[in-house]
Amino acid sequence: MKYKLTLLASLVASFSSFAAPKNIIYMIGDGMGPAYTTAYRYYMDNPATKVVDPTVFDSILKGMAHTYPDDDTVVTDSAAGATALSTGTKSYNGAIAVDTAKHDLKTMLEIAKEHGKTTALVATSQINHATPASFAAHNVSRRNYNEIANDYIDNKINGKLAVDLMLGGGTDYFIREDRNIVAEFKQAGYQYEDDFAALENINSIPGLGLFAPVAFPAAIDANPDRLEKMTKKALSLLHKQNNKGFFVMIEGSQIDWCGHANDIACAMHEMHDFANAISVAKDYVDANPDTLLVITADHSTGGLTLGANGEYKWLRDVVKGVKASAPVITKALMNAEDLAATWPQYSSIPLTTAYLEQLTKAKVAGEKALNKAIRHIIDAESFTGWTTSGHTAIDVQVFAHGQHANDFVGSQNNTAIAEKLIGYIKQ
Amino acid sequence: MKYKLTLLASLVASFSSFAAPKNIIYMIGDGMGPAYTTAYRYYMDNPATKVVDPTVFDSILKGMAHTYPDDDTVVTDSAAGATALSTGTKSYNGAIAVDTAKHDLKTMLEIAKEHGKTTALVATSQINHATPASFAAHNVSRRNYNEIANDYIDNKINGKLAVDLMLGGGTDYFIREDRNIVAEFKQAGYQYEDDFAALENINSIPGLGLFAPVAFPAAIDANPDRLEKMTKKALSLLHKQNNKGFFVMIEGSQIDWCGHANDIACAMHEMHDFANAISVAKDYVDANPDTLLVITADHSTGGLTLGANGEYKWLRDVVKGVKASAPVITKALMNAEDLAATWPQYSSIPLTTAYLEQLTKAKVAGEKALNKAIRHIIDAESFTGWTTSGHTAIDVQVFAHGQHANDFVGSQNNTAIAEKLIGYIKQ
Repeated sequence: MKYKLTLLASLVASFSSFAAPKNIIYMIGDGMGPAYTTAYRYYMDNPATKVVDPTVFDSILKGMAHTYPDDDTVVTDSAAGATALSTGTKSYNGAIAVDTAKHDLKTMLEIAKEHGKTTALVATSQINHATPASFAAHNVSRRNYNEIANDYIDNKINGKLAVDLMLGGGTDYFIREDRNIVAEFKQAGYQYEDDFAALENINSIPGLGLFAPVAFPAAIDANPDRLEKMTKKALSLLHKQNNKGFFVMIEGSQIDWCGHANDIACAMHEMHDFANAISVAKDYVDANPDTLLVITADHSTGGLTLGANGEYKWLRDVVKGVKASAPVITKALMNAEDLAATWPQYSSIPLTTAYLEQLTKAKVAGEKALNKAIRHIIDAESFTGWTTSGHTAIDVQVFAHGQHANDFVGSQNNTAIAEKLIGYIKQ
Repeated sequence: MKYKLTLLASLVASFSSFAAPKNIIYMIGDGMGPAYTTAYRYYMDNPATKVVDPTVFDSILKGMAHTYPDDDTVVTDSAAGATALSTGTKSYNGAIAVDTAKHDLKTMLEIAKEHGKTTALVATSQINHATPASFAAHNVSRRNYNEIANDYIDNKINGKLAVDLMLGGGTDYFIREDRNIVAEFKQAGYQYEDDFAALENINSIPGLGLFAPVAFPAAIDANPDRLEKMTKKALSLLHKQNNKGFFVMIEGSQIDWCGHANDIACAMHEMHDFANAISVAKDYVDANPDTLLVITADHSTGGLTLGANGEYKWLRDVVKGVKASAPVITKALMNAEDLAATWPQYSSIPLTTAYLEQLTKAKVAGEKALNKAIRHIIDAESFTGWTTSGHTAIDVQVFAHGQHANDFVGSQNNTAIAEKLIGYIKQ
């Protein structure tokens, strides 16, 4: 009987694999290399149990991806990474959905729109930052933020705006002296909201939510669940909105930024928000099996390692004891009359005489030195290692759940992820 | 028609998945975290082609594994790692197939022997080093090398010696003043060879080949293909030797050692020997489909990163231009009359005035400082990063090919790999 059931399951799996998913949820953890998902598991573990509990990432791991850009560096930036992930074509570092000849590349969001799907972008950065930009804009440089924001309203697919829903930050780029893009979106019928507390007020598509002048603050400092909330909102708006389904790209934008800053506590809070957003998306797939969820990273950041300086340990409790990002702790200590009295508000690490001396000396040298000294203490006590303020070339993981999830098993080029998704969209 | 064929393939796959593999080839890349397999791909790439060519690892990636030991460190050593991978039980760092209460744990090699299979161990370290030891010995400490060697001859399974074939290093531990274990193995009918050039002379099982006093020299310094050759030899001896099949564990032992030494060129040569050994094993599986090949690592080592110091690049040509391990280069430079004349024999990096000054100064300080200075130059020029002389906690990859390979898809505890393999052996 067990054999027969297995055979039946195989048959069902074979049939269902022919149908392309109607809805695609594509999530990108910017900078989220394998050290980050590993760290997050140990960071979240319940110490009362012997086994380290698996995370939502562990429940849907399928493969890994190669992130090199189309130059001789091997190490990609987020623009080339997102261009590969959105178009299936590798390009140069800095490219926003253009190839090495600087010609526009059609993105999967644009193709989804052409095929009548509803489209959306969600990010915790400004919504015109490199990753979301590479899905709905085309530019020779990620630095041209204003031009990219313009593209969002100027880029038409069969006469319609490319993106039906955008949630993120970026009012500074959308309401400018030279052009008020928010007014143009409103004119085009988009419901607009700029107060994150009023996220729930957005109740229809098309919609635009810009909840910060540039990016959201770090999750460790404010709104720790902003990506989870925006993911819920986006999926509730996209759900059954269109019988041709939807395409949404949701970015955990600031994992990368904490990595650049070599700020481990900051990174773990971003991971937590991203993981919870994934859980929301995974639940959606479970309730709507005609949906495919694919998650990957564009690259890893910071050269993060768990264990450092010859010690065989990584102490997550030290990381859990940190209460703010390094810049926020730095500001607090710069303004503090008494370093020793202020420090325990931000870290559970006992302030030894040596550490107090280091901080005092660094404070005299200025904000930059103090920030570095704070991170040095946290890293030394937790045995966290970093090798760079930039990116690294290590392969990233690919997670998938739902229709066609098993197509992502194995080691693949990042462009192959885009090719598969575009293939489903075109079916 | 296409549908029918796919259904047929599903049915065949369902039936064949019930049969346990007769032969198991278990390969462990000691210290081989995901940065190593990524680095190896870029290291091996043909620069004349635009696409970076996939490696043998890429062709069979299935999942990842969590390596934490049974203590609160999160970071495992090779003994606890191999114990988890050989027995399905996590233990403390240093444990050789014993649990935290220091009781013996039955290993999959011992279970294979109980079930009538032929058994073998192959390593480039001494054959009584932590990883192979955890398959056929039991000890409270990996440091008890003599006791572990004794176990290989004293440990009987149903009255028979546990391991039918061993290839590796270690005569210093097997021919001692207090005991000549080689003589005892010969007495027990084992063909013995101690000259690696005479590897081909071993033509029957049981057999023992100990080709170095302790470990083989690093692959970059001598016998670059020793693991590939031993793998070929072991599989040719094991092939159809026994109608109940075989179990062999093959370790790329020294990837870890190059990682501890933070020696990137050394690591890439060890990866190359291990990759070629995998290709031999993969070909064997293709010719003998009743075989399962599973490959993983016990942990990662060194906190290796590709890209460092804020630069977005990793320059493999610099690594390819290194001609010896750091200790060998160090010795050569210590003995050199003219540093500038000797350097180009070992590295393609142009010796700038600044580098010559660094090496000259380090040489005065002694061998250790010179070794460090050499590695510093190679790392700085190639943008290779390291954070530790020890291990890190990052998840490692799991590769599989052949019968039941898809059982290893996804994220899993390292103990689950052992549980699955033991399950097949017991069928």
